[in-house]
Amino acid sequence: MPTDRPTIDLTRVVTLREFEAVAARTVEAAAFGYIAGGAWDEVSLAENEAAWLRYRLRPRVLVDVSRIDPSTTLLGTPAALPVAIAPMAFHGLAHADGESATARAAASAGIPFTLSTMSSRSIENVAEAAPQGARWFQLYTQADPGKTRALVERAAATGYSAIILTVDLPALGYRQRDRQNAFDVTVVPLGNFGEEGIRPTHIDPAPTLTWADLDEIRSWSSLPLVLKGIMTPEDGRLAAEHGADAIVVSNHGARQLDRVLAPVDVLEEVVEAVAGRSEVWVDGGVRRGLDIAIAIALGARGVLVGRPILWALAADGQAGVERALAILREEFEITLTLLGTPTPAAISRDHVARAVP
Amino acid sequence: MPTDRPTIDLTRVVTLREFEAVAARTVEAAAFGYIAGGAWDEVSLAENEAAWLRYRLRPRVLVDVSRIDPSTTLLGTPAALPVAIAPMAFHGLAHADGESATARAAASAGIPFTLSTMSSRSIENVAEAAPQGARWFQLYTQADPGKTRALVERAAATGYSAIILTVDLPALGYRQRDRQNAFDVTVVPLGNFGEEGIRPTHIDPAPTLTWADLDEIRSWSSLPLVLKGIMTPEDGRLAAEHGADAIVVSNHGARQLDRVLAPVDVLEEVVEAVAGRSEVWVDGGVRRGLDIAIAIALGARGVLVGRPILWALAADGQAGVERALAILREEFEITLTLLGTPTPAAISRDHVARAVP
Amino acid sequence: MPTDRPTIDLTRVVTLREFEAVAARTVEAAAFGYIAGGAWDEVSLAENEAAWLRYRLRPRVLVDVSRIDPSTTLLGTPAALPVAIAPMAFHGLAHADGESATARAAASAGIPFTLSTMSSRSIENVAEAAPQGARWFQLYTQADPGKTRALVERAAATGYSAIILTVDLPALGYRQRDRQNAFDVTVVPLGNFGEEGIRPTHIDPAPTLTWADLDEIRSWSSLPLVLKGIMTPEDGRLAAEHGADAIVVSNHGARQLDRVLAPVDVLEEVVEAVAGRSEVWVDGGVRRGLDIAIAIALGARGVLVGRPILWALAADGQAGVERALAILREEFEITLTLLGTPTPAAISRDHVARAVP
Amino acid sequence: MPTDRPTIDLTRVVTLREFEAVAARTVEAAAFGYIAGGAWDEVSLAENEAAWLRYRLRPRVLVDVSRIDPSTTLLGTPAALPVAIAPMAFHGLAHADGESATARAAASAGIPFTLSTMSSRSIENVAEAAPQGARWFQLYTQADPGKTRALVERAAATGYSAIILTVDLPALGYRQRDRQNAFDVTVVPLGNFGEEGIRPTHIDPAPTLTWADLDEIRSWSSLPLVLKGIMTPEDGRLAAEHGADAIVVSNHGARQLDRVLAPVDVLEEVVEAVAGRSEVWVDGGVRRGLDIAIAIALGARGVLVGRPILWALAADGQAGVERALAILREEFEITLTLLGTPTPAAISRDHVARAVP
Repeated sequence: MPTDRPTIDLTRVVTLREFEAVAARTVEAAAFGYIAGGAWDEVSLAENEAAWLRYRLRPRVLVDVSRIDPSTTLLGTPAALPVAIAPMAFHGLAHADGESATARAAASAGIPFTLSTMSSRSIENVAEAAPQGARWFQLYTQADPGKTRALVERAAATGYSAIILTVDLPALGYRQRDRQNAFDVTVVPLGNFGEEGIRPTHIDPAPTLTWADLDEIRSWSSLPLVLKGIMTPEDGRLAAEHGADAIVVSNHGARQLDRVLAPVDVLEEVVEAVAGRSEVWVDGGVRRGLDIAIAIALGARGVLVGRPILWALAADGQAGVERALAILREEFEITLTLLGTPTPAAISRDHVARAVP
Repeated sequence: MPTDRPTIDLTRVVTLREFEAVAARTVEAAAFGYIAGGAWDEVSLAENEAAWLRYRLRPRVLVDVSRIDPSTTLLGTPAALPVAIAPMAFHGLAHADGESATARAAASAGIPFTLSTMSSRSIENVAEAAPQGARWFQLYTQADPGKTRALVERAAATGYSAIILTVDLPALGYRQRDRQNAFDVTVVPLGNFGEEGIRPTHIDPAPTLTWADLDEIRSWSSLPLVLKGIMTPEDGRLAAEHGADAIVVSNHGARQLDRVLAPVDVLEEVVEAVAGRSEVWVDGGVRRGLDIAIAIALGARGVLVGRPILWALAADGQAGVERALAILREEFEITLTLLGTPTPAAISRDHVARAVP
Repeated sequence: MPTDRPTIDLTRVVTLREFEAVAARTVEAAAFGYIAGGAWDEVSLAENEAAWLRYRLRPRVLVDVSRIDPSTTLLGTPAALPVAIAPMAFHGLAHADGESATARAAASAGIPFTLSTMSSRSIENVAEAAPQGARWFQLYTQADPGKTRALVERAAATGYSAIILTVDLPALGYRQRDRQNAFDVTVVPLGNFGEEGIRPTHIDPAPTLTWADLDEIRSWSSLPLVLKGIMTPEDGRLAAEHGADAIVVSNHGARQLDRVLAPVDVLEEVVEAVAGRSEVWVDGGVRRGLDIAIAIALGARGVLVGRPILWALAADGQAGVERALAILREEFEITLTLLGTPTPAAISRDHVARAVP
Repeated sequence: MPTDRPTIDLTRVVTLREFEAVAARTVEAAAFGYIAGGAWDEVSLAENEAAWLRYRLRPRVLVDVSRIDPSTTLLGTPAALPVAIAPMAFHGLAHADGESATARAAASAGIPFTLSTMSSRSIENVAEAAPQGARWFQLYTQADPGKTRALVERAAATGYSAIILTVDLPALGYRQRDRQNAFDVTVVPLGNFGEEGIRPTHIDPAPTLTWADLDEIRSWSSLPLVLKGIMTPEDGRLAAEHGADAIVVSNHGARQLDRVLAPVDVLEEVVEAVAGRSEVWVDGGVRRGLDIAIAIALGARGVLVGRPILWALAADGQAGVERALAILREEFEITLTLLGTPTPAAISRDHVARAVP
């Protein structure tokens, strides 16, 4: 961990993007590349952000917007914003407090936090750190089904309220930056496996995981099951048919396959295919409160936010993440006001249009 | 106010854009940011100008254009050009003469001037400075309805001939430059409220203002009522149904919501929805006489010009604004000649096409 | 005239574009701006060239192309290539030999040369310099109809074989570079008016010229009449109905109205409107033999080439222009071969497609 | 041949594109220009690569991808990947070992190698160097039909298993770089003609070659005949009707006609026209394993890879090419896994979409 963390005046930060530059000075170079990087040429990495700019909001005027309420429910649980923290590996690469700090910030902002299987802190440790906040557990299936089940049971036992199963990692993507930096992900300390006294192969791709396995995974707990990594209406339909409580339209932060569409660009057709049977969330490139409104207008229940949270964590730990979430909240509230939609539920398909090319 | 204003040879200025660079050296940096800036990432700020370049003129030849007449009427009042000065706050930030100079220049060019509620000079002061010119008053409703009514009555009493009600400020937009510059708009001196001996909260957003309030506002005077800030055909239709004498298709110079469409890009569908019941004007990014012809071809009665006027004011006061308006006039006259349309009324939908992408 | 003209090895020049850089060092700066510049923001100037890149050739293979013949007829007269020299004012600004050198080069390449009314050399002088070459005369109508008629009669008397009437100059375009450079076109010596012992207003816009005047102009000589400056199918249809022998789809090298479509982008719809009643030529941005093939595929009989000819003239007089035309010829011949079309007549609409955006 | 070849750590190279920069320091400048360059303005050269980025993969999830098999057959012969080495002239310009090294690398990777008629090494020499690998022979017809036939017979006698007839060289393209570099292709030593004791005109364009000649060429051997250089569905249909065993959709690496469409952009319509009667391959701009998947999704049987192979050869001879092919293989395997398609045959049209513009 770097010790001379740059001082940052959080009150001067007015956009999530500013945290990245601070983090670039804070986080060790190869680890920074691991977090920031995408697969292959990073075509999709750039497009994930740029795609949000293809949409335009259609503000309605002379609507009473004196009472703005940005809250919603996600999987039936109240959330202060239609936002959750995306699962990301190794928060410890960004800050010594790791996932504990991030989870506390999420709890204080009233939004769900997702713990990765590949976390720096353990399931139990994070549960203790943020006992009141909504916590979800992201699951990578392990080569040994028993170990997978053990992870689910530990999460259920410590108050995590949903299982987010990642379905887009049958193999690790072609991470060009990591190959060039010779960044070895297998030596990064893990929170959830250390107690077993062995060093696991950290990323345990699941090439045999299929739709047929979902029933068994669901049987391990009573928690809702969310499928993360759906990018086509065909798979959205299958997810709904297999009873997924929610899906996340996601290309894994553009870290897996390159030259895939941006999640926001497939969102609408996936929503249509799901047809209300599962909640639909979206992640990838969310940077501003404006993005949240666009996602909802296109049919999403909410968004997950990823890298900016780690940059904010790197910048100033829990306080950094709290500032990031406060900015998102203020931006979203102003957006609701100017859009003429006092609540997320008031946003309809008519509030968004394609940009003029 | 800066004292060593750069000398500028106005006869060498051949385009409105040149004034901005001069103003950048004249106006105090944070005030320059306040005037120049837009909301959030300024996506719409850039697009407001760029969108005009998406349209192409279709010139007709071998038409008699020996008698060019660029004049028109706006709200029934003759105007030398289909152009008015857009409402903008605090002309005093650009030049010590403030709105008085701008209004005098507009009068001498024969076009309407719009005074902002948030002006540096008072309603009465500007009326005295430019008694002959057409003057319109832009209205921000105040938290206290009595104060709002008082503004309208003062404008009516001093010869302003229209009320331009701004409908897109239920909250202040996320002004990133001002936040970064820590520009405090509440300490800028105001012309219209000083006489009451109190410092108002300058920008008084109107989150409760709705269509139902229009009748009362109209009842305060016999002046025509113009709604400024309409960006959808739905609201264009509502405006017409509520009897608006005119509407301004506008996104508030991209200072409110970002990632909204450019006004010129929604103009045609709004015109269609209004269906002749109200005049339709447009503003945002107008920089050349060519833009005026495009706006008219798409169905607008005329355009409002904003920032370039303040830059010209900053460059050389009333003379600067007069030069800006003379350039616009010459450009528009040459455009009419080359387009084969001797008057604004001769311009039809067939004189414009989309650019080839 | 500059005296220390840069030496240039013409055999090393392999593209027309290279001449411009040489000319930039040869021609006086403001005169260079006058030749190079376009109207207003020069949006159309850039687009005139760029638009050719929106089209893609569709080569057919295994066709016998052992006998390539790039010749054609223009207005019934044989031409070695489907190319003519566009009318341009003041060749003397580029080279002391002026139009005489350009006309000789065109004659030696076997293609028509067009003399501008605003030429540096007189009608008679150029006729003597290139007696064998096909020569056309471009006509600007003068305020005094008698003077206009005199020009036509002089051209007819000295062997010019067509009148190219410019129809897109009812007023001079807003030439921003000339205004910024204070370039005064009225002091440039003229070839055709000096003998009358008066200095005319050089550019004599024709705001009253209409379709009704064409019959009289045609009556002054037996020469075919070509209308140059048509940009819409509506005017193409009118031109055909008024018996124009040919039209030139042209925006005057983007020197008149800005934000007009590129000629190549309207070519096809104009061709369709003319429906074979007049020949259709096109100019604006032609730089390579590839462009000629594209123009023909879209329905043109041939192209006019403008500025590159003046740059080549500036680079090395007649020899420079001959090299430019030799490059065009070689490029066009290779294009015919690779396209599977041994002659211009073999090129069909199927040999061109829109580029993929 | 350069002697101080830069040392390169092949294990650090993670993308084919990296080889080009190494080659730029290794290969003599004019020869580098000859290999790297395209025709005219190199519009199509740039587009050949860029066009692949217009397509997006549509990954399917929760599919069993534990057994990935990237192999296929090309012309009925097994190939470890749906990839062959494209015919390219003069490998000796890149490395002293010339085509022998390239052919050995291809054999060791299990994919076909194509020897150009214009090779640095002879047909027989390469056959000896890589006796086990699949070898194809690219044919330029010579002015003397007897010489053409001799080439085919030599190839058949030494184990080449297909004739790839180039059909898009009725004339040499307008190679601007070579003209500017005065690169004289006729002095580059040739492998296949030296034994005849004469220096041939190296590139012997075939302007008289037509569809009617194919039967005779086919009669010279029992080898399958592949037509390389088809760019339209019309010619694809003709090729199929004339019994071509395969076609290569190709614009000759953008070295012949410029402003032609990118091969990948016409692939689908050509596939449709061929309607399964011939195999369809594609080349031009292939740089990543992702491209191979896109090509197959659009209907190709496989791809040819060109310039990157020469750059890898220049970087480190046979070892360089082996590394290049290993990267392609790994990339393609990961792509298959993440796309949810364990084999090339599993890839369907539904796995690709147009990028969002």
